[in-house]
Amino acid sequence: MAALADADVATRGRAAARTLAALGRAQKDAALHEAAAALGAASAEILDANAEDVAAARASGTATSLLDRLTLDGRRLAALQASTTAIAALPDPCGEVVEGRRLENGLDVVRVRVPLGRVLVVYEGRPNVTVDVAGLCLKAGNVALLRGSRLSRRTDAALLRAVHAGLARAGVPEDAAIPLELSRDDLAALVAGGEAADVVVPRGGEGLKHFLLEHSRIPVLAAAGGNCHVYVDASADAAMAEAIVVNAKVQRPGVCNAAETLLVHAAAAAQLPRLLGTLSARGVELRGCERTRAAAPGVDVAPAGDDDYATEFLDLVLAVRVVDSLDEAIEHVARFSTGHSEAIVTDSVAAAERFVREVDSACVYVNASTRFTDGGEFGMGAEIGNSTSRLHARGPIGLRDLTTTKYVVRGTGQVRG
Amino acid sequence: MAALADADVATRGRAAARTLAALGRAQKDAALHEAAAALGAASAEILDANAEDVAAARASGTATSLLDRLTLDGRRLAALQASTTAIAALPDPCGEVVEGRRLENGLDVVRVRVPLGRVLVVYEGRPNVTVDVAGLCLKAGNVALLRGSRLSRRTDAALLRAVHAGLARAGVPEDAAIPLELSRDDLAALVAGGEAADVVVPRGGEGLKHFLLEHSRIPVLAAAGGNCHVYVDASADAAMAEAIVVNAKVQRPGVCNAAETLLVHAAAAAQLPRLLGTLSARGVELRGCERTRAAAPGVDVAPAGDDDYATEFLDLVLAVRVVDSLDEAIEHVARFSTGHSEAIVTDSVAAAERFVREVDSACVYVNASTRFTDGGEFGMGAEIGNSTSRLHARGPIGLRDLTTTKYVVRGTGQVRG
Repeated sequence: MAALADADVATRGRAAARTLAALGRAQKDAALHEAAAALGAASAEILDANAEDVAAARASGTATSLLDRLTLDGRRLAALQASTTAIAALPDPCGEVVEGRRLENGLDVVRVRVPLGRVLVVYEGRPNVTVDVAGLCLKAGNVALLRGSRLSRRTDAALLRAVHAGLARAGVPEDAAIPLELSRDDLAALVAGGEAADVVVPRGGEGLKHFLLEHSRIPVLAAAGGNCHVYVDASADAAMAEAIVVNAKVQRPGVCNAAETLLVHAAAAAQLPRLLGTLSARGVELRGCERTRAAAPGVDVAPAGDDDYATEFLDLVLAVRVVDSLDEAIEHVARFSTGHSEAIVTDSVAAAERFVREVDSACVYVNASTRFTDGGEFGMGAEIGNSTSRLHARGPIGLRDLTTTKYVVRGTGQVRG
Repeated sequence: MAALADADVATRGRAAARTLAALGRAQKDAALHEAAAALGAASAEILDANAEDVAAARASGTATSLLDRLTLDGRRLAALQASTTAIAALPDPCGEVVEGRRLENGLDVVRVRVPLGRVLVVYEGRPNVTVDVAGLCLKAGNVALLRGSRLSRRTDAALLRAVHAGLARAGVPEDAAIPLELSRDDLAALVAGGEAADVVVPRGGEGLKHFLLEHSRIPVLAAAGGNCHVYVDASADAAMAEAIVVNAKVQRPGVCNAAETLLVHAAAAAQLPRLLGTLSARGVELRGCERTRAAAPGVDVAPAGDDDYATEFLDLVLAVRVVDSLDEAIEHVARFSTGHSEAIVTDSVAAAERFVREVDSACVYVNASTRFTDGGEFGMGAEIGNSTSRLHARGPIGLRDLTTTKYVVRGTGQVRG
């Protein structure tokens, strides 16, 4: 049965992709506004379905953090409507001319953005993903293939019913957003086949990501974790450094753009007692090198080893190391970083420029918190995921990353000699 | 031994990639000029090595077409020098700002091109690839990992000795271009490991491509063959149509951007006797639908079926079909094309625009031959391959496609609220 279903997914997705690619901006935006309105009109139904999902999840002993992600209320549903409307306001990436020139023989060559095709998103109990992905994919002229989790299936179904109703009012076919109900085994078979989608984006834990990377012959866009660094340079302003380090570590420690290691230039080590004291008071467990521990004898700092520097804690834990130079900081990042987000706090233009050029991560910050790595924060609209891949999309995966390009060549009868 | 070698390749390549990424344009261009000069200075040694390769290949019964590709002479070597110098003249893709904006909170976000990292090219007995790939990769700040064939190993080694000598004179490390001598099995293990390179580009036959697609966990950029179409619209100028169709089919039938199917609007069927007569006189074997055969009774046209429309002949064979409308032509292309290159010949703006928008191929032409699909022809400099993939690079793979991007965010102490 899986094999037949897979062929169906490919055929149905390809047909819908051709229809979607032909839509103009006005129709896509109208559909997004209709979808937002339909979500509002169906709010009672959606919240009822969600209450059932939450009750079932709670009864089966689901962890509190997952329950929180799963739960919708009036405010969260309104936020989903707002983000759908916001997507309509974004420029259409399709048709953008990326580059172009006239050749000596008179041919005009332009490289134009066109829809990517079919985007498969696999996610775990996050109802917001259903709406965000459907909206972003539609705006870029793509088909969204949505494989959510059993945990949120009533909610997802109710959300999609509303979205589909909105699309229909704008003349956009339901197959713009196709739900896939698949077991893990069937999902593995689907992505192993390689034909069901043009790209797969996992939105969930490390287990889901590795599962897809292991089985998929469809390219996977994902982030290899976020072992993010903040480096406090010799010339850093102490108050700015404290604000950035505390924000990067404490504001939401469980996410991939939170800082996991603090590097401090020896010339700024005098900042450590106050900085580490503040972190400790905010509940952060500290693990430091010998020089860190010596610099802040009044703060409880456990010894740190390479294992700590290599760990993405995703918790209120921070590894700390004193370095003698910018070079040593850059070397440390090159060795331990997962290439997600790194920040330097400095007042030196030379140090900032070297850090920006030599740190090879998806997002590199000067005097700002790593927590900004996010499509919404970057002004790209909702993101569909985040990537530390070097191919196609790196960093927050936004509308432009949901397109490919084609070359359009216009001539007057040219032939090749 | 393969496992150890694989780890070595990854370690050595990553170290070299950091060095290469830090090079400025002046040094990279100087190295390219030095490499071109060194190729000239070593021409006797290179041509001797090539003569040995050619003699050995001939003795082992290698096909004439492969011998031709393998053979270097003074003119071809001079062309390699010229293409290396031409790469130096191209703009440096690194540092190009792809997009950027100031956010409401005052953060400046820019997306900047940076080197891709390590590019593994697997090729078969084409000495020009050694020099072109080394030059393009260097220009984009990448490490080139070169796995050539045993057929050209003396030539490749002599070429690389010269290139390395040139790079050294400009202070660029030899590891900018790393030769890999690997058996097929060791190559399979290397790419299956996933760590040895950031992307793999096959330059060779279908067998090589499928071998890599089957074994590689490193992303593969390749073209899924070139079943290319020329559509002669109702309003096409007969002389222009004939010139384009003949060029697309006959000029070099064995390459992927040659046309394999001719579609003719019924209103232009009166052009068929002369057009097919010309093709036949140029040695093209014709296979047509019933209407084609009826329209040109004086020309020898065998019956064509779906198998013919689905075949990339790579030879002097052309499938022909009469269609009743532009829609039918677009449908035919959607069904049979491999997404490489398609052309419309028309004098109708409306038809041209619909063809450009609705034909979903890497390169779409209006009134020009499909044979122009080539990085050099497009003004991108030598190409490193061609892609019908929808991710990362589509069409000729040029310098821009050998980069990735990173986000650089500059602030004044911003933290996330």
